[in-house]
Amino acid sequence: MSTSVSPLAPTDVPDMPAIAGVRLATAQAGIRYANRTDVLLALFDEGTTVAGVFTRSKCPSAPVEWCRARLNAGKARALVVNSGNANAFTGKTGRASTKLTADITAKAVGCKPSEIFLASTGVIGEPLDATKFAPVMDGLAARAQAGGFFDAAKAIMTTDTFPKVATATVRIGKAKVTINGVAKGAGMIAPDMATMLSFVFTDAAIAAPTLQALLKDGVTDTFNAVTIDGDTSTSDTLMMFATGKAEGCPRIARVSDPRLKAFKKALLAVLADLSEQVARDGEGARKLVEIVVEGAVSKASARRIAMSIANSPLVKTAIAGEDANWGRVVMAVGKAGEPADRDKLSIWFAGVRVAHKGARDPGYDEAKVSAEMKKPEIYLKVALGLGKGRDRVLTCDLTKEYVAINGDYRS
Amino acid sequence: MSTSVSPLAPTDVPDMPAIAGVRLATAQAGIRYANRTDVLLALFDEGTTVAGVFTRSKCPSAPVEWCRARLNAGKARALVVNSGNANAFTGKTGRASTKLTADITAKAVGCKPSEIFLASTGVIGEPLDATKFAPVMDGLAARAQAGGFFDAAKAIMTTDTFPKVATATVRIGKAKVTINGVAKGAGMIAPDMATMLSFVFTDAAIAAPTLQALLKDGVTDTFNAVTIDGDTSTSDTLMMFATGKAEGCPRIARVSDPRLKAFKKALLAVLADLSEQVARDGEGARKLVEIVVEGAVSKASARRIAMSIANSPLVKTAIAGEDANWGRVVMAVGKAGEPADRDKLSIWFAGVRVAHKGARDPGYDEAKVSAEMKKPEIYLKVALGLGKGRDRVLTCDLTKEYVAINGDYRS
Repeated sequence: MSTSVSPLAPTDVPDMPAIAGVRLATAQAGIRYANRTDVLLALFDEGTTVAGVFTRSKCPSAPVEWCRARLNAGKARALVVNSGNANAFTGKTGRASTKLTADITAKAVGCKPSEIFLASTGVIGEPLDATKFAPVMDGLAARAQAGGFFDAAKAIMTTDTFPKVATATVRIGKAKVTINGVAKGAGMIAPDMATMLSFVFTDAAIAAPTLQALLKDGVTDTFNAVTIDGDTSTSDTLMMFATGKAEGCPRIARVSDPRLKAFKKALLAVLADLSEQVARDGEGARKLVEIVVEGAVSKASARRIAMSIANSPLVKTAIAGEDANWGRVVMAVGKAGEPADRDKLSIWFAGVRVAHKGARDPGYDEAKVSAEMKKPEIYLKVALGLGKGRDRVLTCDLTKEYVAINGDYRS
Repeated sequence: MSTSVSPLAPTDVPDMPAIAGVRLATAQAGIRYANRTDVLLALFDEGTTVAGVFTRSKCPSAPVEWCRARLNAGKARALVVNSGNANAFTGKTGRASTKLTADITAKAVGCKPSEIFLASTGVIGEPLDATKFAPVMDGLAARAQAGGFFDAAKAIMTTDTFPKVATATVRIGKAKVTINGVAKGAGMIAPDMATMLSFVFTDAAIAAPTLQALLKDGVTDTFNAVTIDGDTSTSDTLMMFATGKAEGCPRIARVSDPRLKAFKKALLAVLADLSEQVARDGEGARKLVEIVVEGAVSKASARRIAMSIANSPLVKTAIAGEDANWGRVVMAVGKAGEPADRDKLSIWFAGVRVAHKGARDPGYDEAKVSAEMKKPEIYLKVALGLGKGRDRVLTCDLTKEYVAINGDYRS
């Protein structure tokens, strides 16, 4: 397994400001890894609201079920995240493990277990020994302090090759509020799969139902528009915590409140930044691929066609091979099952139209396209010519390294 | 690109008997390849009925559209198949090319163009120069003779590593009838994709609508239950021709005719044999994988779950790595979107139960499973515990060779 940083990693890492009402600490609990942090504790001031969006898997992990059951109350005092073990497909043991983790944390923090949110990433099917949290939890609670978001992003990594952070500062009314986000992306741990976790923190004062609506809306074109291999994790978790501690911040309780305008935009930018970083750290990725589908009968139809292209192993291997193989794009459009008319279809690679009205574009400059395909970022556009539906998804290429990461580690 | 024969190739190749009323010939038309046959002509006696099942792609090839438009008449006098060029996404040029091919063939054979069926496999988006058929067609028509099915299977290969043939002989009433089938499977030609073609010939006397019903029914659990990479070709074509020339064969015009019982079973066996050979020759395949899902709420639900497992790159790379990674199977069940209850789920690899009721089976013998995973044929079973729905699909593993075949050929 390669430990080198993805060539697609962002070159600039932002300074992550502190968020009023959020304190962080990380520790080595020895869940699976040696010599690295594997547990994150985030403490929230009283009054913090919470929202969450989770995997649509029918076999979700125990922590996903734990969080879902406690989300309606809308209040959070702490978040515990561990890497190394996903606590997924662990049955009753898994449920007991989430309860024990919450109990240990509640005692150390001084709140109710129901105000604690949990996430786990790593091996599936292995029992998570929650007693390992007991020796470190009091220390975590004592050490927790403002800042430390980069370390937080590090502690939740599995085989991510770089920590993923993003930040934005905007105003709600006259109050300056900050949004910080961390994420872990597509990593592999024997014998397991990629799992996506992301946590967003803000000092804005936003009622839980409003926060939930904002998050749900924000995820559609960010995290839900990214695919590495089409394999949905049992553990996908995106949670957002709003402490309300930004000085002078008015309490917002309606999604349509006009004072949220800049905040919505900034939240989208943070989510988009984090989700793009996930694509940039896809297993074995050497190319970041942006796929735009326009002229579909609807946005939903454009999304399904874009995802069909993004998840096609033949398209992804062609891009790995730096081949502008539009024949495979046609195939992926055709198999999506959405309205499409071959004779109206046009395809661009890197802004060069290679196919037009159902056939190869006779005038296209193959040398120019070939040069573009060697770049680390590939822009692919499909125009269906049927309607106004447009959508965009991000993915990466499918390389031998992907197969090596996911197949070779036992041999 | 590897030219060695798949290690999963069948060790026995059946003798292919002649079919009364079918004559075959192959030739080198120089469509794309040098020094190999690339065109097949099959001639049928008058009275031959035809049935066909085609790709569900919304961007089908020109020959697929040609055949669909002529299927209702139910009569066939000739079949022309070429490899090297799929005549897909070729617009008006493609339609003109199918017409010219049919015209050339009709003249050589002495029938109507509408009685000629066409299939093409190979490069997508390149115009197919049908004038190349003209110099060889008279010779093909003159040379066509009984037998030659193995050569026919060879002529339609692209990057298949072995020709695919199957045969069965049964009785309809007192008449002995034969069913012969040929297929080409998952091959890649720069810049193209796998395309699946299969043709089945019989001397039984079966009315076209009945033949169509038999074929449609037969494909469900054979070709439609095979996936290599989840990428549907623009050219998938399965056609069946019934000459009615078997001595003393009664003419059958109802699917429910009890005299068809043995024939139905034999047809299924031929289709299953050919489709299994397609899986055995999947690009880069080193393992044949049989996936059975039982206890689903319906057969359709079991199929969708089995396909979700079969198309999961994480499951396929794990199998390539000889890893009984049932955590990834859970993931694939969970993402299928079908009813599933984690706490009722059990999973077997090679007959060994590795997971039971939502958690790892504590008693399972990992050494035994590891030994089984080294074998070339992997049997994976999932029991959902919800209902009586059961289905089975075949696939192969996802190896670095797959990526190499599909990504490296231009670099």
